[in-house]
Amino acid sequence: MLLSKIAQYLELEFQGQDIEVNALNTLQDANKNELSFLDNPKFISVLDSTKAGAILIDEKFKDKIPNTTIALFTNEPYLNLAKITKLFAPDILENKGVYPNIDKSAKISPTAYIAEGAIIGKNVQIMPNAFIGDYVEIDDNTIVYPNVTIYRDCKIGKSCIIHAGSVIGSDGFGFAHTKTGEHVKIYQNGNVIIEDDVEIGANCTIDRAVFGSTIIKQGTKIDNLVHIGHNSIVGEHSILVGQSGVAGSTTLGRNFVLGAQSGVAGHLNIAPFTTVAARSGITKSIKESGKTWSGFPFFEHKEWLKLQAKIARLLK
Amino acid sequence: MLLSKIAQYLELEFQGQDIEVNALNTLQDANKNELSFLDNPKFISVLDSTKAGAILIDEKFKDKIPNTTIALFTNEPYLNLAKITKLFAPDILENKGVYPNIDKSAKISPTAYIAEGAIIGKNVQIMPNAFIGDYVEIDDNTIVYPNVTIYRDCKIGKSCIIHAGSVIGSDGFGFAHTKTGEHVKIYQNGNVIIEDDVEIGANCTIDRAVFGSTIIKQGTKIDNLVHIGHNSIVGEHSILVGQSGVAGSTTLGRNFVLGAQSGVAGHLNIAPFTTVAARSGITKSIKESGKTWSGFPFFEHKEWLKLQAKIARLLK
Amino acid sequence: MLLSKIAQYLELEFQGQDIEVNALNTLQDANKNELSFLDNPKFISVLDSTKAGAILIDEKFKDKIPNTTIALFTNEPYLNLAKITKLFAPDILENKGVYPNIDKSAKISPTAYIAEGAIIGKNVQIMPNAFIGDYVEIDDNTIVYPNVTIYRDCKIGKSCIIHAGSVIGSDGFGFAHTKTGEHVKIYQNGNVIIEDDVEIGANCTIDRAVFGSTIIKQGTKIDNLVHIGHNSIVGEHSILVGQSGVAGSTTLGRNFVLGAQSGVAGHLNIAPFTTVAARSGITKSIKESGKTWSGFPFFEHKEWLKLQAKIARLLK
Repeated sequence: MLLSKIAQYLELEFQGQDIEVNALNTLQDANKNELSFLDNPKFISVLDSTKAGAILIDEKFKDKIPNTTIALFTNEPYLNLAKITKLFAPDILENKGVYPNIDKSAKISPTAYIAEGAIIGKNVQIMPNAFIGDYVEIDDNTIVYPNVTIYRDCKIGKSCIIHAGSVIGSDGFGFAHTKTGEHVKIYQNGNVIIEDDVEIGANCTIDRAVFGSTIIKQGTKIDNLVHIGHNSIVGEHSILVGQSGVAGSTTLGRNFVLGAQSGVAGHLNIAPFTTVAARSGITKSIKESGKTWSGFPFFEHKEWLKLQAKIARLLK
Repeated sequence: MLLSKIAQYLELEFQGQDIEVNALNTLQDANKNELSFLDNPKFISVLDSTKAGAILIDEKFKDKIPNTTIALFTNEPYLNLAKITKLFAPDILENKGVYPNIDKSAKISPTAYIAEGAIIGKNVQIMPNAFIGDYVEIDDNTIVYPNVTIYRDCKIGKSCIIHAGSVIGSDGFGFAHTKTGEHVKIYQNGNVIIEDDVEIGANCTIDRAVFGSTIIKQGTKIDNLVHIGHNSIVGEHSILVGQSGVAGSTTLGRNFVLGAQSGVAGHLNIAPFTTVAARSGITKSIKESGKTWSGFPFFEHKEWLKLQAKIARLLK
Repeated sequence: MLLSKIAQYLELEFQGQDIEVNALNTLQDANKNELSFLDNPKFISVLDSTKAGAILIDEKFKDKIPNTTIALFTNEPYLNLAKITKLFAPDILENKGVYPNIDKSAKISPTAYIAEGAIIGKNVQIMPNAFIGDYVEIDDNTIVYPNVTIYRDCKIGKSCIIHAGSVIGSDGFGFAHTKTGEHVKIYQNGNVIIEDDVEIGANCTIDRAVFGSTIIKQGTKIDNLVHIGHNSIVGEHSILVGQSGVAGSTTLGRNFVLGAQSGVAGHLNIAPFTTVAARSGITKSIKESGKTWSGFPFFEHKEWLKLQAKIARLLK
């Protein structure tokens, strides 16, 4: 899509030669045919090194924009970004006649739905009423139980098990907000990548990334009714216990253990071999690996136990 | 159904002329062809103005009953109400041969189920293995993802998005209890109304009302694994984050924000522009608009932060 | 399967005559054609009375093993057990040509899937896109809503209601862990038994037992998005409110009430007529019946209220 079309859609102007915009992306990752945005001034230093072909940005930062990046000035960059995400959203179900590529050894239920361009590996089992979206890839020996939904473009590794009712690749929860309190959807054009040997319980939800991928790394085991937000990365061999959740854009190190009904906030980094006890809420990044944390607000587990003992003494 | 039949079913007697009873309803809303009940004496003042044709009520209140209302005396009005809700429950799937009315521009997957009398608007997309119950209405441009279930009589507005696995209109959790500890189902004969521009995440559950409607108002955005109880009303442009829940009969004002893994108890009124932080539990109505609340028990957010700082000091 | 085959698979040796092993089981319940294990030394006293034909056990306990039990010595009994559970796992969907046995009065949607050997009773209603696995039994008058998944071998009683999207009999969350931090799946070869008059809300998950059964007893009512772990037993006429959860191997007495968003840890025993308030976490067994508990850590409800009042006073 031409940048001029985008500018016109947003009723914004720009100076310089028109360019072809293939996608939206973050400042760090955008290339010369991608449009990015700067909304939070704390990321302004990223401007120096961006390769983005164009950017939605407040005019007050105009001196900081590299020569190679065309500016679309607006005092609501994020809201304008949101408005155009829809233009880049692919069809939910395409109709181009691209046959799925299903290995002969795969067992596909006649009532499962395998969409265009999907690739299904050896010995994969897709059970009744599962939905496999456009261009989804499912590698060898994976089992998809009934009533699972895998949205388009997601990739599932080898020897995974996805239990009934789980949803992989639904839209991340992302909106820009107008001054009058409405929410404009940011279409989530990324995907979910699930690596090998991952097991996902029943009725879980793993959201697709806005750009790039939400990633569940190798060997991770997820219990039932667990939620993983968009753009999060769950480290190798992690254990996420029932009804726990991870908000968006958080990176969990390997062998992370998240207790039942616990949560991890968004935009955090959690060191490897971290354990979080049941019913805890982690709201800050954790740098030291190998520790156990509890509570909300959270403390090191031993400290939390001490604190609870002291609190209980208030009763006396 | 004749009141005499109902009385016979419950083994109760009444005085006066028999009437036709078309439905059950609350004291406030019942009309002369509806049967109501009074269980909790704190609502006794409503008796004065009720238009109910008949009422299940304890005989001790017999002097308070209007002339226009026939009394069925019982010392267990609620339990008796529960017993007859089943008589008024419609079939789950009717078989009257009423064709659904589907706009030509709608894209309906061949493996989606569209029941009798459903009305599907322009450009609606219903994806594989979704279930659209009897007399459901889905207005223009709405997308229903795979494996969604919409129970009978629910109404979905324009330009809504309902992600995979969500269930709209399942029975509210309502039971009357016998003296020996059994639970008698109160059939939920209301519906769910979802207004325009609402997005509902994956694997959410929104329960139908016992009478009347559970309502999700315009522009509200709901994340994954969120539960909304029966007869609740979620105000316009609200944001309900992942794994949060709202119990029954609560009314939330517009632009309500409910943080991840938080809950709101039943039968509350929450002022507009209220924000609830993650992992909080709201157990009382909130009258002042525009404030932020945290914790369980809950406090104003600033107070909660102070309190947590003081609690942490106990460790020293 | 011959014990010699199992030993060969695990690269372990044993002394004595080869036996046929039909199943894996606990030390208490195993018979002479079953293989068991001892991992936690605190259960060593059970060795005296075990009828297990063979056992995975550390060599240091060799003097405690009955004559009738053949030992496979290993310093990782649980990990080795995990490795062989897969050998005993039945096919997910068999293909033996055993027709399901469906009563003529049952209403089965043409798009529901009824697997081999299933038995469907009188007046049962199975709605579109539900999945009923191999040898599942569903007794008279039960309703299974759309997009429900019932895994193989589970048994559902009379007059139950299972709301849309719920998953009955998915694998319990059980893994043994290697020294290098990987998780080896323990195949869950038990089932779920749901007794008569149970109602299960939308998008719930009830896991199958590793051996034996997860049991939901008669008359219990479960709200939406509730999780029940493997091998737990929910007592008669219990009430589990929305988004609550019960971990594995816990036994709840009759008329247990679990408030919204609350949890019960694993391996506990809870006395009958216990009530747990919303947003509480129960981490120890409860012996006295008829009490109400709150909070996390949990207290008797009255004590918890006092404690919260004292904590709030810290603000002053």
